[in-house]
Amino acid sequence: MIRVGVLGAEGRMGSEVCAAVTDADDMELVAELDAGDSLPALTEAGAEVVVDFTHPDAVMDNLRFCVENGIHVAVGTSGFTEERHQALREWLAAKPDVGVLLAPNFALGAVLMMRFAELAARYYETAEVIELHHNRKADAPSGTATHTARAISAVRKDAGLGAAPDATTSELDGARGARVDDVPVHSVRLAGLVAHQEVLFGGQGETLTIRHDSLHRSSFMPGVLLGVRQVRTHPGLTIGLDQFLDL
Amino acid sequence: MIRVGVLGAEGRMGSEVCAAVTDADDMELVAELDAGDSLPALTEAGAEVVVDFTHPDAVMDNLRFCVENGIHVAVGTSGFTEERHQALREWLAAKPDVGVLLAPNFALGAVLMMRFAELAARYYETAEVIELHHNRKADAPSGTATHTARAISAVRKDAGLGAAPDATTSELDGARGARVDDVPVHSVRLAGLVAHQEVLFGGQGETLTIRHDSLHRSSFMPGVLLGVRQVRTHPGLTIGLDQFLDL
Amino acid sequence: MIRVGVLGAEGRMGSEVCAAVTDADDMELVAELDAGDSLPALTEAGAEVVVDFTHPDAVMDNLRFCVENGIHVAVGTSGFTEERHQALREWLAAKPDVGVLLAPNFALGAVLMMRFAELAARYYETAEVIELHHNRKADAPSGTATHTARAISAVRKDAGLGAAPDATTSELDGARGARVDDVPVHSVRLAGLVAHQEVLFGGQGETLTIRHDSLHRSSFMPGVLLGVRQVRTHPGLTIGLDQFLDL
Amino acid sequence: MIRVGVLGAEGRMGSEVCAAVTDADDMELVAELDAGDSLPALTEAGAEVVVDFTHPDAVMDNLRFCVENGIHVAVGTSGFTEERHQALREWLAAKPDVGVLLAPNFALGAVLMMRFAELAARYYETAEVIELHHNRKADAPSGTATHTARAISAVRKDAGLGAAPDATTSELDGARGARVDDVPVHSVRLAGLVAHQEVLFGGQGETLTIRHDSLHRSSFMPGVLLGVRQVRTHPGLTIGLDQFLDL
Repeated sequence: MIRVGVLGAEGRMGSEVCAAVTDADDMELVAELDAGDSLPALTEAGAEVVVDFTHPDAVMDNLRFCVENGIHVAVGTSGFTEERHQALREWLAAKPDVGVLLAPNFALGAVLMMRFAELAARYYETAEVIELHHNRKADAPSGTATHTARAISAVRKDAGLGAAPDATTSELDGARGARVDDVPVHSVRLAGLVAHQEVLFGGQGETLTIRHDSLHRSSFMPGVLLGVRQVRTHPGLTIGLDQFLDL
Repeated sequence: MIRVGVLGAEGRMGSEVCAAVTDADDMELVAELDAGDSLPALTEAGAEVVVDFTHPDAVMDNLRFCVENGIHVAVGTSGFTEERHQALREWLAAKPDVGVLLAPNFALGAVLMMRFAELAARYYETAEVIELHHNRKADAPSGTATHTARAISAVRKDAGLGAAPDATTSELDGARGARVDDVPVHSVRLAGLVAHQEVLFGGQGETLTIRHDSLHRSSFMPGVLLGVRQVRTHPGLTIGLDQFLDL
Repeated sequence: MIRVGVLGAEGRMGSEVCAAVTDADDMELVAELDAGDSLPALTEAGAEVVVDFTHPDAVMDNLRFCVENGIHVAVGTSGFTEERHQALREWLAAKPDVGVLLAPNFALGAVLMMRFAELAARYYETAEVIELHHNRKADAPSGTATHTARAISAVRKDAGLGAAPDATTSELDGARGARVDDVPVHSVRLAGLVAHQEVLFGGQGETLTIRHDSLHRSSFMPGVLLGVRQVRTHPGLTIGLDQFLDL
Repeated sequence: MIRVGVLGAEGRMGSEVCAAVTDADDMELVAELDAGDSLPALTEAGAEVVVDFTHPDAVMDNLRFCVENGIHVAVGTSGFTEERHQALREWLAAKPDVGVLLAPNFALGAVLMMRFAELAARYYETAEVIELHHNRKADAPSGTATHTARAISAVRKDAGLGAAPDATTSELDGARGARVDDVPVHSVRLAGLVAHQEVLFGGQGETLTIRHDSLHRSSFMPGVLLGVRQVRTHPGLTIGLDQFLDL
């Protein structure tokens, strides 16, 4: 049984994590902490792995405590920069057995979609991304779409492909979407939707489409549990859940 | 047997029309004219209905000749304005038995998609249009997408719905598409595609999507043949093939 | 303010209806009854319209009481037969001002999808239905898919179209789906899905697809509220929410 | 310049290959042979690689000649069995520099779709395949769909997943599709379609869909050209174009 602690346990995602850990046959939920709770409760409870869904302002202190105390961490909190990565690497250098996973997206399907997009990108003349979310979302495009477009663009550059050929000479402003590293990204906002993305590739006489639909936030839980299991045997800093998948 | 003449018979669309008329059990192809041919050949051949896929510069002369000679016309040529409509109505007033059909799009599926979009628009809080074409297309959005968005917007206004609620506060330029009468329209350009469009409606807990895929230009022929058959019994000016469908 | 009573108020759908009525600006929730509660509470509370999401065994007694007491009813309960329709019509004949709506599906999008399928069916050589649901569903195909296929088939017969031409000579058992009145219906069952359906039409060089995605049971509420509003001015028996839509 | 010969040069696919080779900057079309032509013309023309789109009855003789004469071959002809593979391996053992590629499907997108399906299969509780083709197709399901389902099933078995859980207790015959190694496969046949396939995976709260649309047979040409280039540096027998992709 893996002894798991959860930070941000009362939040929307954290409470879902607590339920998922409780349901998992190979895990035991030993600590549920939220803002204001004392971190040493983690060591007192004997937590082996901690899941952090807290806040950019809190996550670095949490991580420092965990690493120093030999606890592995799977992190879903956002706000990481290259500087923060560097700090983490230094802390981890002093604790060579400890693993930390930073995952921008824990949905397995989103991770697979991004990986497949990278694998396909070199074989197609053209590529675009459509992301579709509920109309309460504040930012466009989504982080996952931006991430996907950048990855596609990087592969295209490696393969000697530049911006896709586009004969558009007359465009109503915005019709062709936003350009993220030369890749067109379109953001649809509709009531009733949750979180969805399509990556479209087009070549001679054919198209390839990879679509991910997240219909409920429970979709993140299998990825969180996989992260908890794998981070124990992957010391050091891991960025992206895809590193733990056999792709 | 309906005696049919074709103007623009050597063009890409016109030649397809000649083949379709020849194949139709209830039609006979009696005249195939192209630029430089003399219009009286139509009356000599006894054409009852003429199909015009020519050029904006030629179509008005063609129409005047046909109407004056009592020949019905189904027109796929573009370039019509309110002034041209008015001229046509005057010519037709003098020939009360003659019918002229102007059809911006002869694909039955496109016509149905636009009609269904109009019917659905009053029932949904949000609506967007995605059109997808091959990357040799010069304009964005497509004419059909613009037409669809305008129709949706008009219905929304009638129903007391304004612009759809949209919480976007941070947008990368173009991500949310072009606005056609307040309706977001997104234009995708991919090698391998032909002509495709999706109309998306979203309301509480549900979405409705109407999609048309035109995979070959033969898709226009059933609409042309339907237009030829119906224009004979619809005197006066008809705009849009949907007027001949039982919707 | 429309005074609304709910029967089956403690059920999964009924409790959602209570919340939706409470939220509606033009309605007041005056009675919430469940199994064991006494129907006269409806008249005492002055209910003008009742929503019934109860059980096939209970619904006819509920309807008899409401009609006799001049209360309009919108019914989402299943189990109606031609005999039950006949009984209802007799009760309503004695109360010419009262309206009863029986709606097999209150999701506006599903109602629109079925109506559009009927409108399109006569224009296409081929038609198939794919319905996709979560893998806890017991029956295949879904009721909505069966209903849609029957409606398409009826229109095809009226239009002189028989079974769609199909060149399949070698079929692995089941590959071509079930036949509902000659229309192929395919049932997909996937974890993660909710309730989805695609109606596909194919003709020369083109396809038309109508897709409905129900992502949450709240999707039924706008249809329920529309039913409540409209049933008051539609005396007699109405079958299908589409009768109240302007299609 | 790679010197390329084409066998079956007058056929539907072969003539497309001749055109594609002629258009390729790095290739020269040195021989176009069809039934009745003499194979030594290939050696006389100095062909370095041969593309074979002929017939199951002719392909083995063609291959024997090419291998014995040190010519690499990319084969799109069908009808290969384990016995034929064995014969080929023996011929190739005597010519260790020669490469032969057997590709059941040369469309890059189809190859990628199948590979991605294999990569995703272990991460999802449920998986189904929908293939959609024009209604002149004789067999259901398609070869590609069968191949995909078998590959998914094999991965599921390796990962300890059996048949996907399915609560269906009441099924109209055929509704749940055909079972190919326990994976449900649905075959849609519509006028207007060309060749399309969707692979659907469903897990907790999410779905992943991989879709390939082949809209024109030119879609096979990039894969053929890639095969021609790669087969020269891959001696021995290679089965499947995916072996030459960097996946």
